[in-house]
Amino acid sequence: MEVRKQRVLAETVQRLIHRGATANVRKILGKTHPADVASIFPSLVLHEQRKVFDLLETEAARAEVLVELKPDVYVPLLQSYEPAAVLPVLKEVEADDLADILGNLPEEQSQEILKRLDQKETEQVEDLMRYGEDTAGGIMNPHFFALHGDTTVEEAIRSLRENKDTEDVEMAFYVYVVNDVGQLEGVVSLRQLVMSPPGARLRDIMIHEVISVRVDMDQEEVARLVARYNFLAVPVLDQSNKILGIVTVDDVIDVLREEATEDILKMAGAGEEVAETVSFWSNIRGRFPYLIASCAGGILAALAMTPFRERLGEFGLLALFIPVVLGMGGNVGTQSSTIVVRGLTTGVVQLGRSLGSVARELAVGLLLGMFYGAVVGLAAGGIAGGLYYGLVVGGALAASMVLAALVGALAPLTLARLHLDPAAATGPVVRACVDLLSTVTYFALALLLAGTFAG
Amino acid sequence: MEVRKQRVLAETVQRLIHRGATANVRKILGKTHPADVASIFPSLVLHEQRKVFDLLETEAARAEVLVELKPDVYVPLLQSYEPAAVLPVLKEVEADDLADILGNLPEEQSQEILKRLDQKETEQVEDLMRYGEDTAGGIMNPHFFALHGDTTVEEAIRSLRENKDTEDVEMAFYVYVVNDVGQLEGVVSLRQLVMSPPGARLRDIMIHEVISVRVDMDQEEVARLVARYNFLAVPVLDQSNKILGIVTVDDVIDVLREEATEDILKMAGAGEEVAETVSFWSNIRGRFPYLIASCAGGILAALAMTPFRERLGEFGLLALFIPVVLGMGGNVGTQSSTIVVRGLTTGVVQLGRSLGSVARELAVGLLLGMFYGAVVGLAAGGIAGGLYYGLVVGGALAASMVLAALVGALAPLTLARLHLDPAAATGPVVRACVDLLSTVTYFALALLLAGTFAG
Repeated sequence: MEVRKQRVLAETVQRLIHRGATANVRKILGKTHPADVASIFPSLVLHEQRKVFDLLETEAARAEVLVELKPDVYVPLLQSYEPAAVLPVLKEVEADDLADILGNLPEEQSQEILKRLDQKETEQVEDLMRYGEDTAGGIMNPHFFALHGDTTVEEAIRSLRENKDTEDVEMAFYVYVVNDVGQLEGVVSLRQLVMSPPGARLRDIMIHEVISVRVDMDQEEVARLVARYNFLAVPVLDQSNKILGIVTVDDVIDVLREEATEDILKMAGAGEEVAETVSFWSNIRGRFPYLIASCAGGILAALAMTPFRERLGEFGLLALFIPVVLGMGGNVGTQSSTIVVRGLTTGVVQLGRSLGSVARELAVGLLLGMFYGAVVGLAAGGIAGGLYYGLVVGGALAASMVLAALVGALAPLTLARLHLDPAAATGPVVRACVDLLSTVTYFALALLLAGTFAG
Repeated sequence: MEVRKQRVLAETVQRLIHRGATANVRKILGKTHPADVASIFPSLVLHEQRKVFDLLETEAARAEVLVELKPDVYVPLLQSYEPAAVLPVLKEVEADDLADILGNLPEEQSQEILKRLDQKETEQVEDLMRYGEDTAGGIMNPHFFALHGDTTVEEAIRSLRENKDTEDVEMAFYVYVVNDVGQLEGVVSLRQLVMSPPGARLRDIMIHEVISVRVDMDQEEVARLVARYNFLAVPVLDQSNKILGIVTVDDVIDVLREEATEDILKMAGAGEEVAETVSFWSNIRGRFPYLIASCAGGILAALAMTPFRERLGEFGLLALFIPVVLGMGGNVGTQSSTIVVRGLTTGVVQLGRSLGSVARELAVGLLLGMFYGAVVGLAAGGIAGGLYYGLVVGGALAASMVLAALVGALAPLTLARLHLDPAAATGPVVRACVDLLSTVTYFALALLLAGTFAG
């Protein structure tokens, strides 16, 4: 669903809720894809989210919406209900998704829910929760379709038809062929099954060389494997080659996207998640350490230049701190622009509601600027030997970081509004603007304070 | 296949070819997945590539390898054969891949091949070549399985079994239901087909609301749609709702990866494709314009500081050019590290053979450094009014860009060797190192030349 349509949907639903027109809301929700219903949740406040959730027609529909929500949305939503009230919904959720959801809830609440599931479900979910979140075991689905090699095609089709569980089997496009003890021997695609003579045994039509993964393989490796060989699903095996579950291509797509986002943000030193999906403080925490490198490098650069200090004169001493002021400003600018660009690409930042992103970046710039301004200002005062230098450098650094966050957030949004590619407004272009602004600010402040200190 | 295994395979094949042990090569190739065979091609020279290609057992195997190759590999390979010799291979290639391949060959050669295909194939391929490469039409597969709504489940399964074409039908997991004139009415999954009573009509078991795309939709929008709704394939329709083809999830994964690479490189101002997949000059051309912004910004910063020149003293004048030297160096460093990190992630840069990547980045840094060193040196000489300043600034800028390219390429490779995440070695960390190195170089050169000019 396009961003514009999404906004219209959110506003319509909000208006109808406030008017109490529940029948209309129910009608709209019935006609909307669960992924689209989920997409409006971040724009709603909790009581509206609850209303929408309650108005969905079936528990299955609620489950489908639930699995599309991000943790920061579904955790407060689930916590707002009694455990008994959400249990029927959670029973409709696939075990792999359920394990993720329970893993994000507080220990106490997830135990409460696990107690109320039936034993088989509880075991499956607990098994899944034991595997690392970023491993094949953590993303696999424990429902798959496996039959013995002696089974005939006709029997296989019949059991596929009769097995009530198959409806649960997410994308059952392969039948896995196992031996007496459950070890994987081969695979038959549903297409082969349909196209083979009814009397043939699975063992005779199966593909023997199945590429599989171990339960502890890193999810990114699994994703690359599936992408490389164009698989729809890959079986997950334990140490003794027994099949435990399957990783399906739709989960692989999510892993690849997550991985790209992580890489992009890490490269800009901007944490690992797009700011809008984490809290304000996580955003700060993600960016803070990368700036330490820049800060230390800049102070070292100033120290490296000190042998020249006699040749620079009083005012020329300011030159020592140009690298640190420009470096810190530039890095904050790159962080902000990268977060906004990736947010636009993944749909987390929306053009029509981007004011919040700008305000957020500005606040981050201000906070980081005040902290680093104080640190670097103190260092500068010490190195150059004077309050004047400390005030000029610290003040300019703080101002530069605020300006950089603003330019970094506004530049890609402006390009996007002009229907140009926002990614062009990161890196060199943003840095050049920030460098220029920082230089001017730095020397303007130096002149201003020079008057005060002289007078 | 892991990078290490890939290297072993490439070296084994090379050794066996040089020994003339063709039987052994054939045996190895027979046991290797086509995607893995394709992965060793970039490490082989043309005559070795031809040997491997010729030793593959069937035309179908050759086709499977061919579609996994990048254009810079398959274009010279195909050109080294007579059109008549590659024709049997190309006939085994799916129409959508064939259209891409022919689109990358010189006009003359692709016409030559199109003439020799049978009429139906030629029409399909020519149709596909007409759609923009980045649209749904450009990535769709024109083979799909469509039946009239009156067909029964039993008939559908029989025709799936009998239709010789179905083997060609890439991932036929959906049966599309059409009316008398070929307009899309609904869809039945293979699973539903297997699980429905044999006498039911497709119209009665199909899903009516099919999400489809127009033939001219941008491929990135198509990819996001498929990712969002977890589809395995999405039908492509023309203006009158007639189904023309399908876009499958494996192509979507390729589009999403391409898109992420493009965004990452654009954000660092490093062109749009990983350097190893483009020629040396395309690499330079991709990076050059982004540096203009940095160069212009730096020179403007110098000009902005000129009001202070009297207060800076002879030597202090050098301060004016710190922003441009650090800015240009930092950007080249970020470009190089981003190219190497993305290359490592996508497997284009391989740890065991990374010396080539370092040499390449060094050469790019040298060339860009000489050019921009001359430009900025001239500007600096003019602004500061003296040959001395021109030489110091120009020389330091060139040296800084070379050092930055080297640090940018080596840092992520070093981290990867230590089994750490290479993405951590871009952005702020690389820039801090480059800033420090550039500052020291700049002032060291200034001192050195000051002696010469004084003397």
